[in-house]
Amino acid sequence: MKNRPIGVFDSGLGGLTTVREIRRIMPGEDIIYFGDTGRVPYGSRSRETIIRYTKDDIDFLLKYDIKLIIAACGTASSVALPHLKDKYSVNIMGVLESAARKAVEVTKNGRIGVIGTSGTIKSGKYAEIINQLSPEMQVFSNACPMFVPLVENGYSESTAAQLIAKDYLTPLKNENVDTLILGCTHYPLLEKVISGIMGDEVTLLSPGALAAADARDYLMRENLLSARTDGGKSEFFVSDSVESFTALGGTFLGSPIESTVHLAEVFE
Amino acid sequence: MKNRPIGVFDSGLGGLTTVREIRRIMPGEDIIYFGDTGRVPYGSRSRETIIRYTKDDIDFLLKYDIKLIIAACGTASSVALPHLKDKYSVNIMGVLESAARKAVEVTKNGRIGVIGTSGTIKSGKYAEIINQLSPEMQVFSNACPMFVPLVENGYSESTAAQLIAKDYLTPLKNENVDTLILGCTHYPLLEKVISGIMGDEVTLLSPGALAAADARDYLMRENLLSARTDGGKSEFFVSDSVESFTALGGTFLGSPIESTVHLAEVFE
Repeated sequence: MKNRPIGVFDSGLGGLTTVREIRRIMPGEDIIYFGDTGRVPYGSRSRETIIRYTKDDIDFLLKYDIKLIIAACGTASSVALPHLKDKYSVNIMGVLESAARKAVEVTKNGRIGVIGTSGTIKSGKYAEIINQLSPEMQVFSNACPMFVPLVENGYSESTAAQLIAKDYLTPLKNENVDTLILGCTHYPLLEKVISGIMGDEVTLLSPGALAAADARDYLMRENLLSARTDGGKSEFFVSDSVESFTALGGTFLGSPIESTVHLAEVFE
Repeated sequence: MKNRPIGVFDSGLGGLTTVREIRRIMPGEDIIYFGDTGRVPYGSRSRETIIRYTKDDIDFLLKYDIKLIIAACGTASSVALPHLKDKYSVNIMGVLESAARKAVEVTKNGRIGVIGTSGTIKSGKYAEIINQLSPEMQVFSNACPMFVPLVENGYSESTAAQLIAKDYLTPLKNENVDTLILGCTHYPLLEKVISGIMGDEVTLLSPGALAAADARDYLMRENLLSARTDGGKSEFFVSDSVESFTALGGTFLGSPIESTVHLAEVFE
């Protein structure tokens, strides 16, 4: 029971940053990862499509006797989870609650910024959760649809990225936010550019890493932590090419992908 | 028989530039358009996935008693069509042959450049077809994966687009090409930036528009041109949100999308 794997899914590669954090703080846990690389990105798609794809992702993971699912995708967490969570008996954690709670905790001036995909920002879910926790907080948000392609095509540290980031972030900087939620798994890879524009005094929060900590708390509380304290294994499934996932995944995972990646046959 | 519609498909919106050209030069033709907006983009996906998705697109159009199919997508044309064309009885035209023939016709120094998605460039199909037509031609190519997101997010005329385009195009400019094939339907929307870097003396070719002219020649030759010379109707199908297609499609079509857009139920 306790040694069952944790399931993690994302629209693509970005959720591997969450896997990295799970492995760091819970090295004994087995992990099943599913990246829907054949249909990435989710962030620009319609609400209905995001819900449909997220349901497929969850149903895929459930074939593996999972003890907990983490939706390590800002878009799936904000747009789809509110509609799907109650339909399953397994606990499905999104990345929003962890980041929202942390933001409320660390902000000094009560002005919180949120950036994410168009889907995430349009959903308004971050503002909703933050204001449920603390109604006096003011939330300012902006969609940054160019950030994912910039990261995926090697432009993370380019002048072009700086110019585009300036467009996206200036309105939030002008609102004097002191805390900024990086609401998409790719954005931590642009941390240098983002912090260069926002300034050192603004705290940047990465929801994927925060969700891993919350997952540990949940497993501990429910007495579901693995009996092992080391040697957990990760297994990776994708819906597009195994080769490109293996080649690119290391950037997000922080170390080369060590085990075989499988092609998920689910959408054939 | 003659009045049956022409089928056009693309991974998303870009193929509407081909529809625009068909309507301009064959205003009597009915058109059925399918945009796979629920799975766009194709250009960065694996060969197997591109072939699978393209097959779905063709099978969808075949439900509508089509007299000719145009694959108005550089990636589907170069990666998938060579594997699928012979499996169908209806003629399926890609966008490569038209552009390749035109390039061979207009180049003066025999040095032709090709830009496109990663999938298109990796396939090497443009160089193959150009060299079949004229073995002494030299073909230089480069993938430009940032061009589609730049266009789709309103950055077509930005400094960021200029910087990124300079990265992608400088190697081709240094090879002294006098003709450049814009091998992805989105790229003509960056024509100003591209021509600013390449210089006025380089001829830019748009495969989608050239394919429309070749389609007319084919229909004429086969005696399949519509008996009407005006009043052709276009019907649009997409696999993601009807709203966003209707809102954005006009930019590519050159005029607002005038008829109802349908959600294709095929992938449900």
